Amino acid sequence: MFDCVAVVGATGAVGREFIQLISQRGFGAKRFKLLASARSAGTAVRVNGHQLTVEQLDPSSFDGVDLAFFSAGGSVSKTYAPAAVRSGCVVVDNSSAFRMDPNTPLVVPEVNPDDVKSHSGVIANPNCSTIIMVVPLWPLHRENPIQRVVVSTYQAASGAGQAAMHELEQQTRHVLDAKPVVPRLMPFQYAFNLFSHNSDIGDNGYNTEEMKMINETRKMFHCDDIRITATCVRVPVMRAHSEAINIRFARPITPDEVRAILAQAPGVTIVDQRDPQHFPMPIEASGIDDVLVGRIRRDISEPDGCSIDMFVCGDQLRKGAALNGIQIAELLAQSR
Amino acid sequence: MFDCVAVVGATGAVGREFIQLISQRGFGAKRFKLLASARSAGTAVRVNGHQLTVEQLDPSSFDGVDLAFFSAGGSVSKTYAPAAVRSGCVVVDNSSAFRMDPNTPLVVPEVNPDDVKSHSGVIANPNCSTIIMVVPLWPLHRENPIQRVVVSTYQAASGAGQAAMHELEQQTRHVLDAKPVVPRLMPFQYAFNLFSHNSDIGDNGYNTEEMKMINETRKMFHCDDIRITATCVRVPVMRAHSEAINIRFARPITPDEVRAILAQAPGVTIVDQRDPQHFPMPIEASGIDDVLVGRIRRDISEPDGCSIDMFVCGDQLRKGAALNGIQIAELLAQSR
Repeated sequence: MFDCVAVVGATGAVGREFIQLISQRGFGAKRFKLLASARSAGTAVRVNGHQLTVEQLDPSSFDGVDLAFFSAGGSVSKTYAPAAVRSGCVVVDNSSAFRMDPNTPLVVPEVNPDDVKSHSGVIANPNCSTIIMVVPLWPLHRENPIQRVVVSTYQAASGAGQAAMHELEQQTRHVLDAKPVVPRLMPFQYAFNLFSHNSDIGDNGYNTEEMKMINETRKMFHCDDIRITATCVRVPVMRAHSEAINIRFARPITPDEVRAILAQAPGVTIVDQRDPQHFPMPIEASGIDDVLVGRIRRDISEPDGCSIDMFVCGDQLRKGAALNGIQIAELLAQSR
Repeated sequence: MFDCVAVVGATGAVGREFIQLISQRGFGAKRFKLLASARSAGTAVRVNGHQLTVEQLDPSSFDGVDLAFFSAGGSVSKTYAPAAVRSGCVVVDNSSAFRMDPNTPLVVPEVNPDDVKSHSGVIANPNCSTIIMVVPLWPLHRENPIQRVVVSTYQAASGAGQAAMHELEQQTRHVLDAKPVVPRLMPFQYAFNLFSHNSDIGDNGYNTEEMKMINETRKMFHCDDIRITATCVRVPVMRAHSEAINIRFARPITPDEVRAILAQAPGVTIVDQRDPQHFPMPIEASGIDDVLVGRIRRDISEPDGCSIDMFVCGDQLRKGAALNGIQIAELLAQSR
């Protein structure tokens, strides 16, 4: 049980999901405080049955706050999280600001819950695409070490925030009405189109989103020699990410063994029906907690039987962001 | 120069593209004949500046026809192509009916043009996803043999025909207007969603579309030991397919070497600009002939430098279907 829990970025897509989950899960806190930029301050929001007013974030916002969920971007986290920690608050940070900091644990509760214990004020929530991938990969990795992963993503608009979801909707109306499309937030037309994830590209040609999937997975698995390549793509879907994942294991493994492991795995629902076909889809993954896993099959390109193909979908705002943060806080509450 | 060229399935999405390309490319024939089912017979269509009426397909339709493009599905091809061949017509078949028949050449003119010569009446046009993949893979394979491919597709509505494109448009309007969505042609909601390619699934867990990409590539490359795995997914895009392709070569290869080879390759345009970002996108691949290739980078998961990642887009109706058929006919015309 916490005394006072703050949500920073309370009016954003992830912030709203935090607030909804707090109510749905009966998250234990005596008091809640909603924080955002000056632009959103004054907005009225219901939390756990109580009407609250969003306050403007400033350095003194964290007096008396013992837990804060940050989801307002990396620069807000870098500016305000240290002050929050100094005032005695534990920060669960959804931005990328501290994820690769060696002193900050990066946690998916189904994967590395014990890492929460080593925090020094900040616990980082991983990138959404990474979380959705590692929830099904970790239980497999524990049984049969994963050597290499080739992943291609199909990422939803919510990954770029509420404004991107709105842009996708508005642009789609314009295309259907044969009106000109003017991209604003997204760099290209999003309606009935797709494009390479528009994060910065490094010297090696990978974009930041792809490098997050690679580096964050290694950090959480405590395994630097797992080899991963990723291609991250934004598709015109609202709020659930999909991923086609090719996995090479140390030893042979059958699709039935994969299904048996995943059937027991927390946070996973298997959706893998061949006739009539029913596999993971964004519309069915949206609004639920579990990552859906299907299309589980032996990779016929690897004759030694050590490779598996699968297809997964997870709600980007929920398990990919807010739900994972809430679960981290629940772990903290248990250890208090 | 042909005397009389028939288009079977003239009112379908691919048939219309055939007719448009015949006019655009000044395809040489004295006469054209448009054929379709009873439902579409009587429709008036302009071909090369002349108004023609679509006739109902029957076994005598091919009297005096020396070339026929078939794009009316596998059962129409199986029923009518043998009769057409007996009457002296050469059939360029866009269906899957004869693709894997050892006596039928399967041809992409940029890959295996010489195979056209060995036909005995029917030349098969490959599956759209296969064509779009092999156009950039073949010139690389000739320089440095490809050992393994992991491909994930992002397939457009046009792959399921004109009715699927219409369904995507109508469903999208319904979702935006908060009306209920009732899937008709497609098995699931298509608007703002994606799903595993809904072709039949075999005992090995791969769907037919995936097996086409694997088997057709091997046949055209005359290389049974190229190892391929594929995951085929339909995304809410109108008419260009995208593919994330991970390629393992026999020897080390650099991204610059890949770019140099592809810069000379017929049918390929490199779109690979990192700042500001500009990579292949369906809206830019639609309505053009070339396959767009970008995101060319060394696969950092393979330390020996033998693997490359890339992302490609190609117009499913054009190079993925009708254009490739026209190019086959142009090869035939040259050898007459």
